[in-house]
Amino acid sequence: MTYCIGVMLDNGIIFASDSRTNAGMDNFAKFCKMTVFERPGDRVIVLLSSGNLAGTQAVISVLTQRCADGDAETNLYGARTMFDVARLVADAMRAIEERDAGHLEGNRVGFNASFIVGGQLDGEPIRLFRIYAEGNFIEASTDTPFLQTGETKYGKPILDRVLTRHTPLADATKCVLVSFDSTLRSNLSVGMPIDLICYERDSLAVQYRRRFDQGDPYFTALSHDWGEGTRQVFRDLPELSW
Amino acid sequence: MTYCIGVMLDNGIIFASDSRTNAGMDNFAKFCKMTVFERPGDRVIVLLSSGNLAGTQAVISVLTQRCADGDAETNLYGARTMFDVARLVADAMRAIEERDAGHLEGNRVGFNASFIVGGQLDGEPIRLFRIYAEGNFIEASTDTPFLQTGETKYGKPILDRVLTRHTPLADATKCVLVSFDSTLRSNLSVGMPIDLICYERDSLAVQYRRRFDQGDPYFTALSHDWGEGTRQVFRDLPELSW
Repeated sequence: MTYCIGVMLDNGIIFASDSRTNAGMDNFAKFCKMTVFERPGDRVIVLLSSGNLAGTQAVISVLTQRCADGDAETNLYGARTMFDVARLVADAMRAIEERDAGHLEGNRVGFNASFIVGGQLDGEPIRLFRIYAEGNFIEASTDTPFLQTGETKYGKPILDRVLTRHTPLADATKCVLVSFDSTLRSNLSVGMPIDLICYERDSLAVQYRRRFDQGDPYFTALSHDWGEGTRQVFRDLPELSW
Repeated sequence: MTYCIGVMLDNGIIFASDSRTNAGMDNFAKFCKMTVFERPGDRVIVLLSSGNLAGTQAVISVLTQRCADGDAETNLYGARTMFDVARLVADAMRAIEERDAGHLEGNRVGFNASFIVGGQLDGEPIRLFRIYAEGNFIEASTDTPFLQTGETKYGKPILDRVLTRHTPLADATKCVLVSFDSTLRSNLSVGMPIDLICYERDSLAVQYRRRFDQGDPYFTALSHDWGEGTRQVFRDLPELSW
């Protein structure tokens, strides 16, 4: 499985992804699922990958090669809008699907890559998309400021209770990390390290990026304080009178 | 969908179930999923039903008829242990499955009834089981004091953080209700009213039973206070220094 999330806020976007991949229960590995295309002052594009690793890696490699080739029609650095960026990612996904699908017939997994893509191009607002395996996509809105992929359920209640579009970046970052903590506890196929980017609107550069590995002191303290805090909230809740 | 939970504690068992059933997205209804077999001073047996309603209702009707028939071999009031109770429920499930399975072939849902069963017989400890659709079952243990069925994920993190075998009944009750609140917010196919029983060890009677309907003042206050409290815990969490 996987857990990836993008949160669209007034002042920026939070991106976070776990790093566990597995082929069956007996074959776990670590791969970074976060990819950044950045040209400071011009654009920041962040991709979070979910699904079959061969598929997601191939899509990233195609996108990277197309950037190197420099064809304005197909490369992320030539895109004029984030909407066009999402379309280019979808085009790369469809190209891989076309190449591989026939060979994966009868394979239980198949081509099932999907992406969260967000960021900002100079002169454009920040935008955030979720691209499905078929290459169609949705965009985060005011009503639903976050998009998740993979094991989404365990970590969702805390996001629902805390996040709005107006939540400050620092608070949203903590919320995302608690959401990961809840997910890691319940699904073994979601695992550390967690990659985190907090993109500040109009900065057009990745200024805040952190990787949280097993035993990270901040993550451990956050998890502990959250557990203690919620248990205290419980003790203060009104008693039920039967 | 459905959400049912049984929590096995030192001092008793909490049972709770939602009441929503649906046949497709456009056909919702309310049915109580909690059934009690009680003979005060002798035994309390609580069943929580999940799965296809025709199947679960048939199982309950078979169990009820067998109690009326009074055959010591097959009726819940004749069972000597909670283990035997779980077996009798499984037998009833298998009888319905045998009768209906052939007629449900090709039906997407099929016979998929499953149950949480718990309670106490005079002279026995409290016990709690989860019976799968096939009629085999597991029992709650010290390590894992709660058993869930249906839409289990949204409501699980809070149980994991708060519940141990030693949690007082009153606190566990609040925890179960918050778990329901989280689930109701995220899955429309889980719905109120919530039926709740708090069975006190060795009481051999159902003393604490409540139904929480839409707008219930206690449930509304609990949900509000929990939301406020957790948001405050957030504000107090340590800031991440990049």
